[in-house]
Amino acid sequence: MPNSFSVKDYIRTIVDFPHEGILFRDVTTLFADPRGFRMAIDQMLHPYAGQQIDRVVGLEARGFILGGAIAHQLSKGFVPVRKKGKLPAATIAEEYQLEYGEAVVEIHDDALSAGEKVLIVDDLLATGGTAEAGIKLVERLGAEVVGCAFIVDLPDLGGRKKLEDLGMDVHALCTYEGL
Amino acid sequence: MPNSFSVKDYIRTIVDFPHEGILFRDVTTLFADPRGFRMAIDQMLHPYAGQQIDRVVGLEARGFILGGAIAHQLSKGFVPVRKKGKLPAATIAEEYQLEYGEAVVEIHDDALSAGEKVLIVDDLLATGGTAEAGIKLVERLGAEVVGCAFIVDLPDLGGRKKLEDLGMDVHALCTYEGL
Repeated sequence: MPNSFSVKDYIRTIVDFPHEGILFRDVTTLFADPRGFRMAIDQMLHPYAGQQIDRVVGLEARGFILGGAIAHQLSKGFVPVRKKGKLPAATIAEEYQLEYGEAVVEIHDDALSAGEKVLIVDDLLATGGTAEAGIKLVERLGAEVVGCAFIVDLPDLGGRKKLEDLGMDVHALCTYEGL
Repeated sequence: MPNSFSVKDYIRTIVDFPHEGILFRDVTTLFADPRGFRMAIDQMLHPYAGQQIDRVVGLEARGFILGGAIAHQLSKGFVPVRKKGKLPAATIAEEYQLEYGEAVVEIHDDALSAGEKVLIVDDLLATGGTAEAGIKLVERLGAEVVGCAFIVDLPDLGGRKKLEDLGMDVHALCTYEGL
């Protein structure tokens, strides 16, 4: 008999955050629950069991929580992709589109080596802009993205299609239809 | 024979970041190394072996990487302390002093329950301002801080003394003298 609970049971929906009309899928309630957090990390790794992963890249900021846990579980290194100006050594940068304007993310230019296999993790896949910028940063360092793992997929925002069109292997633990 | 390497071997020092005269202790090189990251997380937990810890609180942003890994290793929940405006549900806030001006950190007001035992984690203990704000947030929710765990302690900046004067159990994996 399968377990009768899922990560979705622990995700809370906040109406009108960060602004009116948005249903914000809040994973902090999932992370705060010992069973929820344990399940989420373990299940994010199931599609990659037996595959070579050399480093885990987490996208700031909630991707750090997941990426730290996943890297530790795998006994691999963790590499952050951060907002502009936060990393102290030499970086490369990628710009991406927001609803209004642009944002820039960076990675240390010595954080990955050519040929390394990388798993990218974040909590939520919406338009895929941040994830696409992360993929570009990893690939510019000569490393290979073996997968992009998320807790939540909002397919109607187009992120999954965008990443799959780039040839990515995309996994999420749950899906919410609509915007 | 003890292992002949330590976490300090993996920490890089960046001169003049974020501004002139600062020696920035960069833990991203520790996190990126599989042996370094594994050692860091395991060693942060050694002082707390056998103690009850119900939740792990991580301070934004590098404390998320460590806190996620530690919570997962313990099979406990993770709770973020975030900069103002980032958490989607109802919060409580604490202000603390920066070198120039103030900053505010928040926690969800339902993230911890009265009586819970909490481990607070961050990468670096400097003036202790952020950690003190985190402690106050945890205690205002009725929970108890059983320890504050860091990678790096800069004792000359006064943070360790500040936290110990609050009655805290403070552990760090390594120390750098001077500013």
